Amino acid sequence: MAPQSPLLSPDRFFSPDPAQRRLARELYERIADLPIVSPHGHVDPALLADEHATFGTPAELFIIPDHYVFRMLYSQGVPLEALGIPRRDGGPVETDHRKIWQVFAEHFYLFRGTPSGVWLAHELYEVFGIRQKLTGETAQAIYDELADKLARPEYRPRALFDRFNIEVLCTTDAADDALVHHKAIRESGWKGVVRPTFRPDAVINLGTAGWRTHLDKLSAAVGREITTAKALIAALEERRAYFKQMGATSTDSGVETPYTEALSDAEAEAIFARALAGTATTDDARRFTGHMLIEMARMSVEDGLVMQLHAGCYRNHNPLVFERFGADKGADIPIVTEWVHNLKPLLDRFGNDPRLTLVLFTMDESGYTRELAPLVGHYPALRLGPPWWFLDSPNGIARYFDQVMETAGLYNTAGFVDDTRAFASIPARHDVWRRVSGNWLAGLVLRGLIDMDDANEMAHDMANNLARRTFNL
Amino acid sequence: MAPQSPLLSPDRFFSPDPAQRRLARELYERIADLPIVSPHGHVDPALLADEHATFGTPAELFIIPDHYVFRMLYSQGVPLEALGIPRRDGGPVETDHRKIWQVFAEHFYLFRGTPSGVWLAHELYEVFGIRQKLTGETAQAIYDELADKLARPEYRPRALFDRFNIEVLCTTDAADDALVHHKAIRESGWKGVVRPTFRPDAVINLGTAGWRTHLDKLSAAVGREITTAKALIAALEERRAYFKQMGATSTDSGVETPYTEALSDAEAEAIFARALAGTATTDDARRFTGHMLIEMARMSVEDGLVMQLHAGCYRNHNPLVFERFGADKGADIPIVTEWVHNLKPLLDRFGNDPRLTLVLFTMDESGYTRELAPLVGHYPALRLGPPWWFLDSPNGIARYFDQVMETAGLYNTAGFVDDTRAFASIPARHDVWRRVSGNWLAGLVLRGLIDMDDANEMAHDMANNLARRTFNL
Amino acid sequence: MAPQSPLLSPDRFFSPDPAQRRLARELYERIADLPIVSPHGHVDPALLADEHATFGTPAELFIIPDHYVFRMLYSQGVPLEALGIPRRDGGPVETDHRKIWQVFAEHFYLFRGTPSGVWLAHELYEVFGIRQKLTGETAQAIYDELADKLARPEYRPRALFDRFNIEVLCTTDAADDALVHHKAIRESGWKGVVRPTFRPDAVINLGTAGWRTHLDKLSAAVGREITTAKALIAALEERRAYFKQMGATSTDSGVETPYTEALSDAEAEAIFARALAGTATTDDARRFTGHMLIEMARMSVEDGLVMQLHAGCYRNHNPLVFERFGADKGADIPIVTEWVHNLKPLLDRFGNDPRLTLVLFTMDESGYTRELAPLVGHYPALRLGPPWWFLDSPNGIARYFDQVMETAGLYNTAGFVDDTRAFASIPARHDVWRRVSGNWLAGLVLRGLIDMDDANEMAHDMANNLARRTFNL
Repeated sequence: MAPQSPLLSPDRFFSPDPAQRRLARELYERIADLPIVSPHGHVDPALLADEHATFGTPAELFIIPDHYVFRMLYSQGVPLEALGIPRRDGGPVETDHRKIWQVFAEHFYLFRGTPSGVWLAHELYEVFGIRQKLTGETAQAIYDELADKLARPEYRPRALFDRFNIEVLCTTDAADDALVHHKAIRESGWKGVVRPTFRPDAVINLGTAGWRTHLDKLSAAVGREITTAKALIAALEERRAYFKQMGATSTDSGVETPYTEALSDAEAEAIFARALAGTATTDDARRFTGHMLIEMARMSVEDGLVMQLHAGCYRNHNPLVFERFGADKGADIPIVTEWVHNLKPLLDRFGNDPRLTLVLFTMDESGYTRELAPLVGHYPALRLGPPWWFLDSPNGIARYFDQVMETAGLYNTAGFVDDTRAFASIPARHDVWRRVSGNWLAGLVLRGLIDMDDANEMAHDMANNLARRTFNL
Repeated sequence: MAPQSPLLSPDRFFSPDPAQRRLARELYERIADLPIVSPHGHVDPALLADEHATFGTPAELFIIPDHYVFRMLYSQGVPLEALGIPRRDGGPVETDHRKIWQVFAEHFYLFRGTPSGVWLAHELYEVFGIRQKLTGETAQAIYDELADKLARPEYRPRALFDRFNIEVLCTTDAADDALVHHKAIRESGWKGVVRPTFRPDAVINLGTAGWRTHLDKLSAAVGREITTAKALIAALEERRAYFKQMGATSTDSGVETPYTEALSDAEAEAIFARALAGTATTDDARRFTGHMLIEMARMSVEDGLVMQLHAGCYRNHNPLVFERFGADKGADIPIVTEWVHNLKPLLDRFGNDPRLTLVLFTMDESGYTRELAPLVGHYPALRLGPPWWFLDSPNGIARYFDQVMETAGLYNTAGFVDDTRAFASIPARHDVWRRVSGNWLAGLVLRGLIDMDDANEMAHDMANNLARRTFNL
Repeated sequence: MAPQSPLLSPDRFFSPDPAQRRLARELYERIADLPIVSPHGHVDPALLADEHATFGTPAELFIIPDHYVFRMLYSQGVPLEALGIPRRDGGPVETDHRKIWQVFAEHFYLFRGTPSGVWLAHELYEVFGIRQKLTGETAQAIYDELADKLARPEYRPRALFDRFNIEVLCTTDAADDALVHHKAIRESGWKGVVRPTFRPDAVINLGTAGWRTHLDKLSAAVGREITTAKALIAALEERRAYFKQMGATSTDSGVETPYTEALSDAEAEAIFARALAGTATTDDARRFTGHMLIEMARMSVEDGLVMQLHAGCYRNHNPLVFERFGADKGADIPIVTEWVHNLKPLLDRFGNDPRLTLVLFTMDESGYTRELAPLVGHYPALRLGPPWWFLDSPNGIARYFDQVMETAGLYNTAGFVDDTRAFASIPARHDVWRRVSGNWLAGLVLRGLIDMDDANEMAHDMANNLARRTFNL
């Protein structure tokens, strides 16, 4: 444990009740320093491929790449240009990172009570040793201190990877990716374990912007033109084999709805032909994705890669932001997500197959008790992933425990997944999960649902065993 | 109060806060030993018809009939055959009940923090006096002790009925049921009160597997062929009268959606004719059920039977499990349930009728504050049933109190319903409800919403008065 | 602070935990007596236009106009006639207000644990100094005391307005309203600030009962016949200008769904022509309202009036009650409300416009974490209104804080809005909000998410600064 101060309470996220707080702390302390297992996320492997890579300026570390952060400032009227977010047209944006930092610091009060606020407080205090509260007044002094530290070797990505005690970190990589950074890491002699994850959304979803370009890249990767659905499936199988050889243990699919449908070969080919001709409809795309999800499950049964499914996000909801700044700019919004009917065709085929592990992620909490806990509490192939994205927060995690565990049982859940592109926030995120886990278990003990032996074992399982087992890490 | 131990905390399900715990215990203790009123459930009346009936082996009592239990083991890869679940094709399943028990005990950790874990702990400790934690190591010794006790007269169903202090127990019975076990109970001179409940789903839902067979049985029961919707309605009226004469005070309908629609006579007859011809569509079935719900409400207005409506469950979601093992095997999954539009045609006719009591049950908690509490807080005919099935749990009950009561008011709710087929779990389930009630009321007192006089009266109403009044028991 | 007694706990709505309670009380006490800012509600301005206006009898103050109150009694079988609710046909209803009060008092136990119970307890104790619990036995004595006080000058509406420390009160007024009461208030020399709010539902929603009559009134108000959609829009613009001149800072729209659609001029005119001809369909009405919401947003961009949108209520669900007693009689029921797709056409046009403030109100809590917090946490034009109607309750407010704030951030919410027609309940409602705010902030401090400096500033912002800023008051 690092030293603590009022800036970062040693008992944060624990119940105010003294008995629960004591027990929560006891349980938490036994798991606080366990190695971090990170089965899914969006850290750029390039950061770890080059031992001399750095995080750049404080703005480059904390603001410019973090859509959680800049969406909040944008919602309060700060233009994204003022935060240095690059424009697609190369138009002018703020380049003075001290100015960007100042704007951020002056708006830091917006993050009161938010998970970003919690993570940033942890990062500043624990990772960078900042001992002042971030405000407009302290902004420049803190910038100096951060810039100074970021220039030192012990704050390079690999150094932090080791300091963070990361046992394994999985990235997310396109189907055509040659995985050069992963290759470099493996060949570098560095002992950090970084694994790729196979995410073929761009070629599976016929409605992806630039789908044809992505398909061409995949064609190039497999060395033959892909002109049929059958050829696409064969290409995916080949790439999965390569990813597996490069250390991957799982795949990932991100879809607007978890609709699945087993198309006939003829139907699949007809849709694919329309896509190549540029005439596929939205419904074509939806059905083809639904079909490919079943194919992905079939491949997982065959090659043993764990299948992840992230469903229910309306991407790029704000056309002005998308046109000016592109994807992943804080304008993705969760939508109603139905699982019972949508997933049935896939489950009819593989739900009882012991070779499949399918991990479901949602941002529609109304499905926790209604659909998801009952589903994963029955189907051997299913596991429920932890709270995702906007739900990865102290309250979001607590609601997940309270709503999911009674019906699903802890052992049908997948442990913690940080899913972040903000490398420096990884320990903060796992720390929130471990603290809220300790607090939840303490509550169960005090309310007589489990005993301390159970609680200890569950705490360890939640800290990293469940993730290790679920993702074969 | 039975003696308590660490295996079963005397303060279980109470808040860790000392003041709330003290008050919750005080309120709970005043209602803990009140008679159990069980207005709806699935206990087999045969168990109580024969004074010598027994529960069989520990596996036959705790595992084989309990889909809550075996679904959890199945979700973790234990085949249902290994748990002795009978196959429809008569294929081989485990018959050594000691082995089944061993598998169960080795997986008992899966139930940590679940309601099944809570009920099983209560049953083992309170009902059977087991003083060890169930694990792989203790499995056989506990089996011995249970088997020994189950062979004794004081552990027969009727003896436990008396020991459990059950004032009245209602079963669930098909429309054509001759109620021979209920007749036997009434004629036996035993003082236990067991009442039938009229549940005509199998003839009302045209899509029921084997609908025609069920209709033929109903024809046989009324002694005339049923060839029209009108004749079906007349048969139901006749059977309701018989059930009422046999002690029934309520009916029950289980439907996938609470859709209601007042069909014209001609439409109803046309659909019924298609059903007889084997050509009714899914939409026909949905509309006919919606029509019959209104007819059931009309009959309730006329004969005074309370109407229960359980809606929103996708039955037999897993075709492999259904084909191999049949219905009620843990593969039923809740779905989105809409009440405001669906129930309107029925409410337009009878929602203001003081002669109707319609008790609604849901597994879609998103409707609690949005639809159900506002509906039952307005319509005189409506009452909201307690948390049902997967929601009958410490957290599920607490959420119901927190989300429903502010708008519905306690007195528009129906009290507790255990809805169980696991007879030995009845006291455990009512105990959870009474404890969580006491804890909720203690919270209201401490937060200044009610005084102790109110709390005491509410505690007694929640323990059994509301159920007595709602169901005319 | 007024003196306190067991009838009204000084620590009501605070956590039972002693540390949280202490801190909650400390935070609450700093904001308890701040001026009340009421940006939206349904108080009749006539009450304040005449300095001699009174509230009438206790039944006229507490029962007859309050649908929260009489819906509960109705749900338990008390006829609305017995409560003096006027019939549309002028048929006989109870006129003895002492009898009405007696029935109310005998059923007062129905309000245990409800927000109405909480508000009524506050009003009786704090506003009217009643020192007995309301029951059938105390009913007449309390009636006497209330009637006596209501006859005194210090209990007239203007006197209470001053005593309640209301800084500003906004009413809700039809598009054609001449605002004579507002004029009278402004010309009276009284210092109370009362502002109108522009609510054109009756002319925008083509399906409104008596739409044509409302349109004719609007025609009269602008002095020219409205025969086209374009003319309707021009009339609305003219009326908005008048409202603004009369002190309005906002508009309000109440819709069944927040559907928006930008119609072409030709489509809008075609639908409007059908409406004039009496042939507009339900779908026409839905699309026209969706179009007019976008027009209302455009006008707000131009004239600076804040736009409020209350969506998701099925009005007049009970035809018997509607036919006999009319609208607003407790038979309005919330429905599923989708925002992400529905609001997109409006947001596409104006979501990024810094000149627009659009405040969203929902009664479908399932959208809090899924849609609304993510939306308002991104779009500069959006703010989320506080819990509305059935959700304006101690638990409803607590859930809002727990579910919304992590993703939206406090500063994308709109502060408190009492939205009441029950003038005497205004301080009670703001008091609940301020207490639950204090308790929430205390929990954040104790769980280490914010420090006391933050908490104090947030408490003041929640008490009235956010409402002031959001609504330009």
